[in-house]
Amino acid sequence: MGKEITSRAADYSQWYIDLVKKADLAENSDVRGCMVIKPYGYSIWEKMQQALDKMFKDTGHVNAYFPLFVPKSLFEAEEKNAEGFAKECAIVTHYRLKNDPSQKGKLMVDPEAKLEEELVVRPTSEAIIWSTYKKWIQSYRDLPILINQWANVVRWEMRTRLFLRTAEFLWQEGHTAHATREEAIRETEQMLDVYADFAENFMALPVIKGRKSEGERFPGAVDTYCIEALMQDGKALQAGTSHFLGQNFADAFHVQFTNKEGKLEKVWGTSWGVSTRLMGALIMAHSDDDGLIIPPRLAPLHVVIVPIFKNEDELARISAKADELVKTLRAQGLSVKFDNRDTHKPGFKFAEYEMRGVPVRIAIGPRDLDNGTVEVARRDTKEKNVMTFDRVKTDIPALLDDIQKTIYDRALAFRTNLTTRVDTYAEFKTVLDGKGGFVLAHWDGTAQTEAAIKEETKATIRCIPLDAPPEEGVCVYSGKPSNKRVLFARAY
Amino acid sequence: MGKEITSRAADYSQWYIDLVKKADLAENSDVRGCMVIKPYGYSIWEKMQQALDKMFKDTGHVNAYFPLFVPKSLFEAEEKNAEGFAKECAIVTHYRLKNDPSQKGKLMVDPEAKLEEELVVRPTSEAIIWSTYKKWIQSYRDLPILINQWANVVRWEMRTRLFLRTAEFLWQEGHTAHATREEAIRETEQMLDVYADFAENFMALPVIKGRKSEGERFPGAVDTYCIEALMQDGKALQAGTSHFLGQNFADAFHVQFTNKEGKLEKVWGTSWGVSTRLMGALIMAHSDDDGLIIPPRLAPLHVVIVPIFKNEDELARISAKADELVKTLRAQGLSVKFDNRDTHKPGFKFAEYEMRGVPVRIAIGPRDLDNGTVEVARRDTKEKNVMTFDRVKTDIPALLDDIQKTIYDRALAFRTNLTTRVDTYAEFKTVLDGKGGFVLAHWDGTAQTEAAIKEETKATIRCIPLDAPPEEGVCVYSGKPSNKRVLFARAY
Repeated sequence: MGKEITSRAADYSQWYIDLVKKADLAENSDVRGCMVIKPYGYSIWEKMQQALDKMFKDTGHVNAYFPLFVPKSLFEAEEKNAEGFAKECAIVTHYRLKNDPSQKGKLMVDPEAKLEEELVVRPTSEAIIWSTYKKWIQSYRDLPILINQWANVVRWEMRTRLFLRTAEFLWQEGHTAHATREEAIRETEQMLDVYADFAENFMALPVIKGRKSEGERFPGAVDTYCIEALMQDGKALQAGTSHFLGQNFADAFHVQFTNKEGKLEKVWGTSWGVSTRLMGALIMAHSDDDGLIIPPRLAPLHVVIVPIFKNEDELARISAKADELVKTLRAQGLSVKFDNRDTHKPGFKFAEYEMRGVPVRIAIGPRDLDNGTVEVARRDTKEKNVMTFDRVKTDIPALLDDIQKTIYDRALAFRTNLTTRVDTYAEFKTVLDGKGGFVLAHWDGTAQTEAAIKEETKATIRCIPLDAPPEEGVCVYSGKPSNKRVLFARAY
Repeated sequence: MGKEITSRAADYSQWYIDLVKKADLAENSDVRGCMVIKPYGYSIWEKMQQALDKMFKDTGHVNAYFPLFVPKSLFEAEEKNAEGFAKECAIVTHYRLKNDPSQKGKLMVDPEAKLEEELVVRPTSEAIIWSTYKKWIQSYRDLPILINQWANVVRWEMRTRLFLRTAEFLWQEGHTAHATREEAIRETEQMLDVYADFAENFMALPVIKGRKSEGERFPGAVDTYCIEALMQDGKALQAGTSHFLGQNFADAFHVQFTNKEGKLEKVWGTSWGVSTRLMGALIMAHSDDDGLIIPPRLAPLHVVIVPIFKNEDELARISAKADELVKTLRAQGLSVKFDNRDTHKPGFKFAEYEMRGVPVRIAIGPRDLDNGTVEVARRDTKEKNVMTFDRVKTDIPALLDDIQKTIYDRALAFRTNLTTRVDTYAEFKTVLDGKGGFVLAHWDGTAQTEAAIKEETKATIRCIPLDAPPEEGVCVYSGKPSNKRVLFARAY
């Protein structure tokens, strides 16, 4: 162990790759673009899943499971959705391998086992789910349907990056069906709020809620809401999306219901999702040159206790105290580990747990036993404090809360500092190329201007913030009138 | 609602199909052989997952995630494994669709997007995981690796049946790597015990632990252990398997480690899994002609409270009591629902919750309020008892324990009754065609005899029970000597 990773200042991108590897989070697999999520990385994802799953259930949703495969004819039913994903999907064409007669011990695709209709490995499940909802929905009594699914999806990305962009990724996708437009919009907004709540209160990640411009909408959606976060290199990252689908999928799959008056109406839909991409956001938002920083509410391990000892007798005495502490802290619902390995020095252990982002480290040496104290180090600020044994037994939960808050506050201050209002295109480019971050600027609302700015600066409209106050101004690019600022940034 | 399902006596197979549909557990999808797991069915699967996941973690395992796809060259590396699954796997050959020039609005596979190497959708993950373990294992210090994965897998089954045999299914697959043969065998046996513990104590399903004959082994395993359960139609169902892989995958993927003496050795492996097939076992083992019977430890809903009322005033008075009860029972960790819908009659609700297998139903009417009582009905025995309001507040956990035990005892008595020792082939066939169930018979240990018996009677060797006492005898088929009885049955 040790400070073996590239520093952020030297090469942010390499720092991220080094960190994902050194903290044992994930690695590339032998399958192009697909990752292996390693046990430690997966344990953080499990914490995310648990928190989100509870939030979904608390808002009335239930889980279900729909097929991995989408027959081509269903896939193409909603045209925009199909067009959006057709260029990057994995396609199953055969259902059998056979011995290759020309190469002993090798297999080949059996040409006689060709499927009549090709199957698309789901890049998203609107098509397969709405073709199912058609069977479930007859009357207004069958609505709303509030379903979530935890699943793997595949999008054949050409340039991949661990967690941030992989051919296969894990996610949850909510798919709801409603009797009215208003109810579907409320659901879309509610789930955006759930995602923002999760990002801010669990991931300690401040986000800006907004709507996508038409060009950035989910294929098949009428409106796409999103939460946008800022990474430490000044680039934005979309951390979750919630789509109002209107009646597009009801149209494509002929999903209608009889309303209370006995008339046929088309069903309204939403879909919303977050993915293992959040792992990338978590890492990039908070971590430092010594490794991961995990907000306590998502940390698989809250506290590690490291003994400082010269001989077995000292270790035995420290262990007695440590065991007592482990017991006390676990009874408070905390995840605690006593690392009594005698194969590694304390310094090595310190660096290892820093790399893995364990929020609190407690060191106990022989002198501590005499003094009735321990040394408590927090990962976020690297502060160390000597605390009495009695206080450490009671004060860790409050310390973890403080760490959670500190990480959030730091990310918020960073974002505030890197959010700039600009009024001219020259300023726009100077800020982007200089300090980076979010740029709030007037935009004339046209796709042409959006495309031109993207082409010239690589910045995209991250969102039209929901809380943007009305403000008269002129588009930084075209000089045409605009009535509110939108959020630009270069993004992951 | 109502008794709308076929009776078991009339047509067991149709009863199963009706029940899966009426209890809202699962349905066939538009994708050949793939099922949709509906919310209620999925909520039972979630309970299974939670219990198993805890048992895996308590025995030192961690979760991780490996790719969905296996490149053909990796898939074929372990020859027996490849041969076992080659005939029934979904194969991805292309990564893009394009507009079909001959049909407006339709898509076609883009022939220019053909993969250089085909990808097999995992039917099981030994190949992809061992190709990864090769990178993780250098020294004895890297061992053991104790990893589990929750995932979907695909096996192109020709004849499918909801939960029992589907092209895509959900499962967990443990994959462990060890320094010694003995440790790997201990792991294989430990996980078999975990599965048996889960089946008996959560699913209330008595199982017989044993080893598979050579012909029934997992492709690529040296030894396959299994748990076998008996369904109500007298057919057996394999409920879980644990494989000792020997060094087969270490050989195929060149996985070696340096031992403490500095010498290179090959790694030993195990794998073990249970799947959504357990849902089929749960349903078929316990349920009756009125619907599901779910053991309380896996029931998503433990208690439903149904008000019996004629007017709003009565409902209001009952609701006050019911709310108090809901609160009290929830505080005891129970899942409780008060069904105060005024759109359905109590009789309808009773039938609905019977169909869904809710273990305890509490009915409260106006007279109960006067008497300080409620009516408590248990799903397993259909017994109804009037209990005082005070007792019902404290006694439900014990009642649930009793239901759990009763369901298990009933299944055990059924199995005991349907396990027959036979000593001649005539008797063997008479029992199979008559009462069915498990048949304990002597077998000469040869694959020929096993195949002949299967061909003639459709019965297979379910397992060689671990606890079979040594007993001299002669094979019922060949008359050759045998030293223990093995377990035969017709099976799912």
